[in-house]
Amino acid sequence: MRDNPQTWFDESLEILTYNRNQRVWSILVTIFGDLARRPGDQISGALLSRLTDPMGIKPEAMRVALHRLRNDGWLHSQRQGRTSRYSLTPHGLTESDAVSPRIYADSAPNIDTSWHLLLAEPAPAAQRSEMDKIWRAKGYVVAAPGTYLGRGAAPKDHAPFLVMSGTPAHVPAWLCAKIGTPDLDAAYKALEAALDHALPKIHAAAHISALEAAILRAVIVHNWRRALLAHPDLPRSFFPGGWRGFACRDKVIAALDALPRPSITDLEDAARAR
Amino acid sequence: MRDNPQTWFDESLEILTYNRNQRVWSILVTIFGDLARRPGDQISGALLSRLTDPMGIKPEAMRVALHRLRNDGWLHSQRQGRTSRYSLTPHGLTESDAVSPRIYADSAPNIDTSWHLLLAEPAPAAQRSEMDKIWRAKGYVVAAPGTYLGRGAAPKDHAPFLVMSGTPAHVPAWLCAKIGTPDLDAAYKALEAALDHALPKIHAAAHISALEAAILRAVIVHNWRRALLAHPDLPRSFFPGGWRGFACRDKVIAALDALPRPSITDLEDAARAR
Repeated sequence: MRDNPQTWFDESLEILTYNRNQRVWSILVTIFGDLARRPGDQISGALLSRLTDPMGIKPEAMRVALHRLRNDGWLHSQRQGRTSRYSLTPHGLTESDAVSPRIYADSAPNIDTSWHLLLAEPAPAAQRSEMDKIWRAKGYVVAAPGTYLGRGAAPKDHAPFLVMSGTPAHVPAWLCAKIGTPDLDAAYKALEAALDHALPKIHAAAHISALEAAILRAVIVHNWRRALLAHPDLPRSFFPGGWRGFACRDKVIAALDALPRPSITDLEDAARAR
Repeated sequence: MRDNPQTWFDESLEILTYNRNQRVWSILVTIFGDLARRPGDQISGALLSRLTDPMGIKPEAMRVALHRLRNDGWLHSQRQGRTSRYSLTPHGLTESDAVSPRIYADSAPNIDTSWHLLLAEPAPAAQRSEMDKIWRAKGYVVAAPGTYLGRGAAPKDHAPFLVMSGTPAHVPAWLCAKIGTPDLDAAYKALEAALDHALPKIHAAAHISALEAAILRAVIVHNWRRALLAHPDLPRSFFPGGWRGFACRDKVIAALDALPRPSITDLEDAARAR
C-alpha cells in the first residue's frame, strides 16, 4: 500500500551528490555542524558510517578523515567498549558556531547596516598579498590590494589603516565580477538545478526517516556551505546580474524545512536498529 | 607728532616678502582675488604698479605676467585713454570664487561632515597616476593610487568606482605624513614666523594707508594661498603632530583683520595722488 521510500531517497541522493570531488573531512565538518553543534553532542562511529556510506564514502576514507580532524583539534573521540563516540572540540564548536548563522539564515544581509573600509599603506606586492590573505580570511572583501571592506564597526587593531566608516553607496561592475567569479556562479547554478530536480521528490515522499533526513540535509548543506563560504557575506548589490546565490538560499532553506533536523538519539536508535 | 609710517610698513613688508621665488603672475592672481573679485571690479595699470613696485617687482616682469594672464583667459584688459584697466574674466572670477571661501575662512573644516571614498579598479601604474592627477586637482586626497577621499556627497560620475559614503574614523600616521609633507610644513612655519614678527609692528602702526593695507594683505594672502592650495582642505586629524597650518590660519586672519580691505576707489585715488 505505501510507496517504496528507497526510490525517492536514492534518486534525491543521486541528484544531490552531483559533486564527486568533495573531501571526506569536509563532509564530516558539515555533518557535525548540522547535527551535533551543542556542547556535549556526540555521534557514534556506527552512525557516521550509516550517514556516509550511502554517499559512497568508503570506511577507510572515513577513518583517515576522522584522524585528520582529531589531529587538527576539530574533533574529539571517546572509546566506549566496542564503539567510538565523536564530538566537536571547543575549537570545532566555536568554528561551527561562527559560520552557522550565515549557513542557516533565511535571508541575505541588508545593505543598510554599518560598514567600514580599511586602507593599508601602499606596500610592495608580496607584502600586500600576504596581508590580503589574512583579511580575506576574516571575511573582508579585498576590493583592491590593501583595501578591505567589512561589515559592522571597524576592528580595534586599526592603527595602520585609514578607516572609513559608512555605507557602500555604489558597487561597480568590476568589483561584482571579482566577487562573483564564474566558478562560484557555476557552483550555485549546479546546486540550484539539483534542488529544482530533487525538491519535488522530497516533497512527494510519504515518509522520511531520521537517517534519510540527516543524509539529504548533509549533502545539501555541504554543497551550500562550500559555495557560500567561498565568498564574504554580502548583499545583492555586490554580485553580478543574474546571480543565483540568493535564489539558491531560498531553495536550500525550503529543502531543509522539508527535511527537519532529526535528533541524535533518533539517529543512533535507527543506526543500531539495522 | 606722528610716527613715521614708512618705518613699520617697510619693516613689515621686508619680513613678509621672505619668499623671493614667487611668480609675478601668481601674485597678480592674489591681488585680483583679494581686491577685485566682484564682477565689474577693475584695477588700473597705475595702481597695479603702485602695489607691486614696493614688493620689488619690475615693470617689465609685470607686463609679461599681465600678458600671460590675458592669454590664459584669466584677465581682461580695457584701454581708456592713456591708462589700461584690468579685470578678472568670468573664468578668472569663477576660479577666484572657488578658492576664496577656503582662503578667507576663519576656521578649518570639521571632521563630522559627510565624506566619500572612491576606489578605482586596479590598473597599470601609468594609467593610475594619470587618474590620480585628475582627482587630486579636484581636491581629493589620493590616499593610495586609485583611492580618492573627498568631502561631501559622492559625484554623479561615480560608475567606475566603489563608492563608500561615511566618515574617516581614523587617519593613520603614514597618510598624515603623505599629506603634510616637510615642504608644506616648512612653508607654514616660515609664514607663521614672519607673521609673529610683523604683526606687532602692524598693530602698533598709528595709521595704515589704503595702499599699505592692500600691499601687506597681498603678500600675506599670497604666501598663505600658496601653502594652503598645495593640499586638500582637511580637518586637523589629517595632519602630522605639531602641524602649524591651523595656527597659521588664526594668525593670517588676525593680520587681515588688522589690515582691512581697502576699496578700489580709495586705492585708485591714492595711486593718482602720488
